[in-house]
Amino acid sequence: MPDQALAIDLGGTKTSWALADSEYRLSDRQEILTPKSTEELLSALHQIIKDTKSATPGLRGVGIGVAGLVDFADGTIVASPNLPLNGIHLADELGSDGLECFVDNDANLAVLGELYAGAGQGHKLFIGLTVGTGGGGGIIAEGGLWRGSRGGAAEFGHIVVDGGGIPCACGSRGCLEQMASGTALERFGREYVTANPTTDLGALFASDPANVSGRKLAEAARAGQEEAIALFNELGRWLGIGIGSLINVFNPEIVILGGGVASSLDLAMEAIRGQVREIAIDPRAKETPLPLSTLENTAGLIGAAGLVLDR
Amino acid sequence: MPDQALAIDLGGTKTSWALADSEYRLSDRQEILTPKSTEELLSALHQIIKDTKSATPGLRGVGIGVAGLVDFADGTIVASPNLPLNGIHLADELGSDGLECFVDNDANLAVLGELYAGAGQGHKLFIGLTVGTGGGGGIIAEGGLWRGSRGGAAEFGHIVVDGGGIPCACGSRGCLEQMASGTALERFGREYVTANPTTDLGALFASDPANVSGRKLAEAARAGQEEAIALFNELGRWLGIGIGSLINVFNPEIVILGGGVASSLDLAMEAIRGQVREIAIDPRAKETPLPLSTLENTAGLIGAAGLVLDR
Repeated sequence: MPDQALAIDLGGTKTSWALADSEYRLSDRQEILTPKSTEELLSALHQIIKDTKSATPGLRGVGIGVAGLVDFADGTIVASPNLPLNGIHLADELGSDGLECFVDNDANLAVLGELYAGAGQGHKLFIGLTVGTGGGGGIIAEGGLWRGSRGGAAEFGHIVVDGGGIPCACGSRGCLEQMASGTALERFGREYVTANPTTDLGALFASDPANVSGRKLAEAARAGQEEAIALFNELGRWLGIGIGSLINVFNPEIVILGGGVASSLDLAMEAIRGQVREIAIDPRAKETPLPLSTLENTAGLIGAAGLVLDR
Repeated sequence: MPDQALAIDLGGTKTSWALADSEYRLSDRQEILTPKSTEELLSALHQIIKDTKSATPGLRGVGIGVAGLVDFADGTIVASPNLPLNGIHLADELGSDGLECFVDNDANLAVLGELYAGAGQGHKLFIGLTVGTGGGGGIIAEGGLWRGSRGGAAEFGHIVVDGGGIPCACGSRGCLEQMASGTALERFGREYVTANPTTDLGALFASDPANVSGRKLAEAARAGQEEAIALFNELGRWLGIGIGSLINVFNPEIVILGGGVASSLDLAMEAIRGQVREIAIDPRAKETPLPLSTLENTAGLIGAAGLVLDR
């Protein structure tokens, strides 16, 4: 019976899971809305594990990615603003079903997924940035996740790139995720449409900022609409500032860009690259490859499986 | 004969060297002005090594810290704006004297010195920031220097904290060293004196921005002069922004502050801590210890010795 892992991706809105084999091929993928109470959520997770265990003789363990701050070493959720799991010792709690459980931050696991099955294959030292509603990241060193002293490393969405800038939900100001995320792109769009309702882009959104979406901005930019292209350049400028800074910090082999906005980041790549060239101190690092993730939303599941399969 | 190392600290202005024993005690410390041409500089280094070798029977090797970007693995100086060593394979060049030579970035070695003999003793994962004329840093992980893929990691002076801010000599804008260094403090002071010549602080400098120095600002702040204290708070605010961001990146056990300004950073510590509390995402990291280096200008020599002695 070949080894298999149950991979679970626990997000604020949806919880998905799948089986992964030793080649990191996913099967039997399923998804539910994430239950809102601690009791219901834990109960749902126990059920998923029990059902999968009884249906899967070769199941070796469970890997879980959580949208929150996780102390990997002891399997505790340190903080999870969008999940009712603050302070829960999730690895122990779910390990009671008789399978070894590993819990990590979801962005960490998305970058680990890139190592096993994505743009990170063959690399020893790289970082990944998740560019979505917010921003996260992960660090791969010596072929594995590098988590810091207590699991809290790689919070790349909360490096400050605009000191004293706009407030962030975290309580700080000018965080990268405020300037370089899907949310930031839509804010740039709304601000532009509000200030310039009679331009072509303003007209496209019927001068109503509420109509602005990242998807529509990407469509307009792909169609050559110059104001939309300028918004992606602004996104890319800030993202490049963050990436350039992180290149100076890590001197990585590559930087992988993933998350929900990754499929549109080709529109921002020239601006990103321009900033990276300007900021990278090491002349050899100015052309650091910046591949876009092609794993879409499977990266986190693959990484979660890796916690079990690559030990 | 106990093991000893020759430690050399090669700066843009001065070159100092000393012997270090296996307890990292320094002796026979000497200093010269750094020769300006490649030929004279290499000749001086060869002479230092030869003289020390013949006078020191137990000499095990040479560790050299260089103010520049160093590829530690192959001992090459990748870039050194203030030294005539661009592209020189310094480890090979000096190894011709028959002693093993190790070359690394000077800020890296200052942080390594903290591991062996300073505030980093007993810690496994920490970072150090050098706050001086410019800003540098180093990363200690698993009890040794973490250098990135090609030696260029930990360029903390060139993370961007004020995107689009004032130009930096590196070609970028808003770098940490432009906002949080001895140079930045003096610029804040000059700007203040220029704009406010008739205030107490303006009077102290005879309304002449050219009279402003970090030393005098520190003296005034220690004497309770409120405008000088405000300047240290501004320095601390920006330094805290950089430190807070790096805590979110590394989740370190401690952050050590060294360099020429370290002895004045107690004046900025409240502002630094305020920013760190605001920025650190991990609630456990908000009180990350921020010790000031007490090694003064020996940290780099101790770290250079460590390259030889701790192998």
